[in-house]
Amino acid sequence: MPTSLPDAGKRVVDAPNFATVATVGPNGTPQLSVVWITREGDDLLYSTVRGRQKVRNLERDARTTVLIHPQDAPYSYLEVRGVAEVADDNGRGLIHELAKEYTGKDRFEGDPPDAQRVIVRVRPHKVIWRG
Amino acid sequence: MPTSLPDAGKRVVDAPNFATVATVGPNGTPQLSVVWITREGDDLLYSTVRGRQKVRNLERDARTTVLIHPQDAPYSYLEVRGVAEVADDNGRGLIHELAKEYTGKDRFEGDPPDAQRVIVRVRPHKVIWRG
Repeated sequence: MPTSLPDAGKRVVDAPNFATVATVGPNGTPQLSVVWITREGDDLLYSTVRGRQKVRNLERDARTTVLIHPQDAPYSYLEVRGVAEVADDNGRGLIHELAKEYTGKDRFEGDPPDAQRVIVRVRPHKVIWRG
Repeated sequence: MPTSLPDAGKRVVDAPNFATVATVGPNGTPQLSVVWITREGDDLLYSTVRGRQKVRNLERDARTTVLIHPQDAPYSYLEVRGVAEVADDNGRGLIHELAKEYTGKDRFEGDPPDAQRVIVRVRPHKVIWRG
């Protein structure tokens, strides 16, 4: 099973497309949310806040899936199944980088002062690209 | 927990927005795909083909989640967590209805002749709307 992103899939991640991320909740029901996304090599990265449901889910069960279908090509999609690592983002570097990409603003101002930003890194175990 | 769709959520379902649906795979990893979606009352309905991964997943574990974020308002979303029922659609009525809504064509011509269409009905257990 491919664990690397095809070039077309990388382009979809690198453009400011929204991603839908799935985690598994405590009772086994999937939980979905929409995030800004980027990558380092083949790993997908997004930013969220400690304490949110998807972070609690990932701390219990790291298996996760990310899907992106571009707004301008909605019948194409990239699905990445993998395992997530959650790490503190004390400098909040990632959320500012993503805000710049998606909104054009240099900083993300949407957090309360005590929000603990985390970086979720999804290491692919299976990659599906349908162009 | 609300199990009915708010009016704004109904409008998002009734418009030709794409939905992302999550099922849980045999090893516990979520699986995601993009579908055309409609509803009957508060139940969400989509069409797929028997034998596909998400159908096999639902037959083993009916817990599922659907997320829709409108293309014209990507920071709004409707998330519906629930339980799916899978039923044969021998007349293929639903896929033709959805094709009409999403493509303007009267019939869906994308199936091989032996495809067994099914209707997936998602009965909500929890509804989250962020407008």
